[in-house]
Amino acid sequence: MRVTVWNENRHEFKNEKVRSIYPNGIHGAIAEGIAENGLEIRTAWLDQPEHGLTEAVLADTDVLIWWGHMAHGEVQDDIVDRVHKRVLEGMGLIVLHSGHFSKIFKKLMGTTCDLKWREAADKERIWVVDPSHPIAEGLGAYIELPAEEMYGEHFDIPAPDELVFVSWFTGGEVFRSGCTYRRGQGKVFYFRPGHETYPTYHNEEVLRVIRNGVRWAAPVHGAKPVYGNAKPLEPVGPKE
Amino acid sequence: MRVTVWNENRHEFKNEKVRSIYPNGIHGAIAEGIAENGLEIRTAWLDQPEHGLTEAVLADTDVLIWWGHMAHGEVQDDIVDRVHKRVLEGMGLIVLHSGHFSKIFKKLMGTTCDLKWREAADKERIWVVDPSHPIAEGLGAYIELPAEEMYGEHFDIPAPDELVFVSWFTGGEVFRSGCTYRRGQGKVFYFRPGHETYPTYHNEEVLRVIRNGVRWAAPVHGAKPVYGNAKPLEPVGPKE
Amino acid sequence: MRVTVWNENRHEFKNEKVRSIYPNGIHGAIAEGIAENGLEIRTAWLDQPEHGLTEAVLADTDVLIWWGHMAHGEVQDDIVDRVHKRVLEGMGLIVLHSGHFSKIFKKLMGTTCDLKWREAADKERIWVVDPSHPIAEGLGAYIELPAEEMYGEHFDIPAPDELVFVSWFTGGEVFRSGCTYRRGQGKVFYFRPGHETYPTYHNEEVLRVIRNGVRWAAPVHGAKPVYGNAKPLEPVGPKE
Amino acid sequence: MRVTVWNENRHEFKNEKVRSIYPNGIHGAIAEGIAENGLEIRTAWLDQPEHGLTEAVLADTDVLIWWGHMAHGEVQDDIVDRVHKRVLEGMGLIVLHSGHFSKIFKKLMGTTCDLKWREAADKERIWVVDPSHPIAEGLGAYIELPAEEMYGEHFDIPAPDELVFVSWFTGGEVFRSGCTYRRGQGKVFYFRPGHETYPTYHNEEVLRVIRNGVRWAAPVHGAKPVYGNAKPLEPVGPKE
Repeated sequence: MRVTVWNENRHEFKNEKVRSIYPNGIHGAIAEGIAENGLEIRTAWLDQPEHGLTEAVLADTDVLIWWGHMAHGEVQDDIVDRVHKRVLEGMGLIVLHSGHFSKIFKKLMGTTCDLKWREAADKERIWVVDPSHPIAEGLGAYIELPAEEMYGEHFDIPAPDELVFVSWFTGGEVFRSGCTYRRGQGKVFYFRPGHETYPTYHNEEVLRVIRNGVRWAAPVHGAKPVYGNAKPLEPVGPKE
Repeated sequence: MRVTVWNENRHEFKNEKVRSIYPNGIHGAIAEGIAENGLEIRTAWLDQPEHGLTEAVLADTDVLIWWGHMAHGEVQDDIVDRVHKRVLEGMGLIVLHSGHFSKIFKKLMGTTCDLKWREAADKERIWVVDPSHPIAEGLGAYIELPAEEMYGEHFDIPAPDELVFVSWFTGGEVFRSGCTYRRGQGKVFYFRPGHETYPTYHNEEVLRVIRNGVRWAAPVHGAKPVYGNAKPLEPVGPKE
Repeated sequence: MRVTVWNENRHEFKNEKVRSIYPNGIHGAIAEGIAENGLEIRTAWLDQPEHGLTEAVLADTDVLIWWGHMAHGEVQDDIVDRVHKRVLEGMGLIVLHSGHFSKIFKKLMGTTCDLKWREAADKERIWVVDPSHPIAEGLGAYIELPAEEMYGEHFDIPAPDELVFVSWFTGGEVFRSGCTYRRGQGKVFYFRPGHETYPTYHNEEVLRVIRNGVRWAAPVHGAKPVYGNAKPLEPVGPKE
Repeated sequence: MRVTVWNENRHEFKNEKVRSIYPNGIHGAIAEGIAENGLEIRTAWLDQPEHGLTEAVLADTDVLIWWGHMAHGEVQDDIVDRVHKRVLEGMGLIVLHSGHFSKIFKKLMGTTCDLKWREAADKERIWVVDPSHPIAEGLGAYIELPAEEMYGEHFDIPAPDELVFVSWFTGGEVFRSGCTYRRGQGKVFYFRPGHETYPTYHNEEVLRVIRNGVRWAAPVHGAKPVYGNAKPLEPVGPKE
């Protein structure tokens, strides 16, 4: 399985705190953290040519992980269309945290993907609401993060095909924080935690969820659907 | 309830057969056919200024019905964005037949919305698979249309929130032909039948489904969600 | 619309506090609280003959509201089967709070319906996660209850067809507290709040949700499905 | 992965035709047909002690496959309860064809599971409506069976969590023929084809679907949910 971890990779250069938490970038921390047998992992980022997401790279990617925040607007529309096409063809997509506002996620969802937020070091408790789901494999009843940015409902997304996690925050809010979708032949998993100023992507349980997500989002190799004008399989009778 | 029936209104001018079936246009037939107490119905079409969908008209519309086919590309993107915004704010949307390929439906779905099709006068039998759904109110086990264009799976849409109808065609195909979605505060209903060369929108049961759909898609008057930076409702502790 | 409010009606006789909050019983408070034009409301309770749920009463009920807690085991199986049959035929069912463990809810769900709970006067904040749903009509972003029994995940139910509310509790838990299901031709709505020692069913917003739920769960008058051996609608060819 | 194939195993003894198609029983054909590396397969049937489903066998089963038809009523309720408990604990369950009326399936669904049927050698075409689903791995656009018993809508089941297949029949009907559900920690897959008088379980594509289903239904090893009275995770304040 070939995984590409994409990161905006800007906060790391502008904010000392972020750099100290993620000296190899958020992409580096995730790539290292989810490494295991059977995963071939590379990274890509915004300031590379074509954002590091050339046709060749995408053709060679089974699952793409996406982290972005301050520069969603700088992602070129033609690259977004290219990623979108690959998802519909079967590439898995894991969208993390502030990626909820990325062009690719909004294009796949068809809604604003807006939400409430607060940077105030809320405690987050991510409850498993579907213990039968492979993305929850190996977890306990919840994941506790001592401090995170708060995201609160209403989260303007389509009702998820499967709701795996719901978050509790100290400040009084809840959030649907683990949501799966199918789009075309591809699978999409949105996972909430991961604000850049907290060491969330060093948390073993968070990394396990991302790893589980990658396994779950792997492409299915069925027949490529054929669309358009179709001959009848049974006699229809004379055309009017 | 204020309903706007939108029609591309082009086939009616180019094709004698279509004109003879729908002398007042497809929009006219639908507007007349669904009329009942409590519905205030107007029509709009592509070649009007702003496609007849001005800010004022949309602000005054509870449910919009959409039929388009040969001129999807001529619908201006800014009008599509305007309709999209209104759906997310709560306006209901009924998308009919070849509207599956309209810009507004594709934007709301996030997929290609592609499908198989055939013009060969297949018989269509639209089976009710959810008899508990208000959109199926007053129907029998199925609606039979003696001749229609065939649409066949795979239909490249997100899994519907609710699947109300599945079609059978003589030529050997099936199709998810009644699908509901929620997007933002709005409700969307896709209903398959209605090729322009058949008198489908004169069929009493088809009209009943559209009428039921309008009732179902009516806006809900809850609080408008507030997004963005949110003060805590409970003490969070000092910000880091 | 004919509504029957069913209550176990036992705590009211054993506990002074409950009696003082609900002098006319929980059923009385709900019946009074949801009253409005177009609703014809009656009550029934456990210690009546046939638990007040005779064939005649059920045949005359469009939506049944169910509150039970300490005496689930005393509800006779044949009455449960009778209610079950009526739901599948189209009667709406609103299951409240500790009704999660009622025989009828478990029979409709097929799971244990177990959960975490605590009586410690947690504050509950019931967040609307689907503002497009008619059950959320007229609400703000959330309902706040200053003190309630806590119910926490994991809640062992099938994934709801629609998730309308998610609760936050002071003690650190979340709960899927507004869940809809379709079973046969009937609609089922589970709504969490309502422990007997709190005045929850005097809360205007809670009552509004129940009233909205009744409207939503109203029977749909489609054709009664016919099952069993079916003649072909099209020529099949000679039987092998 | 440990698989148990359960069969009623009665038609094979009463009907020469069935015996000639399945000389080792339907269970034998399935066990042989799905065999592959990594699957440890055993069989069990109705007339064994405890129907071959002892506590030990079930404890040693990851996925149970179920075929039954003429003797649903002879399956003991306590064995059904035992299987039910194991599904909720995480054992996968694949229910085939006439198993729609088995006690275990009805108990998990909460509905009658009734349907239309006809034995007239209809052709069946099983269309893939979710090409992203692992159960459809390796298939083309549809599976064609030259002759099968017809099952038609309305099928009285809860709306499936995922709809993978829809069948077309010569005689004019459609059927939701591949449906997934989650119940407790277990996964359930209903797959339609397999009437005893046709060689359906010798069809390579049908066997592939069952094999895919087994892989999909494998238990997830998350924490076992804990229910009941729960201590607060955060300070709640003094109990009233």
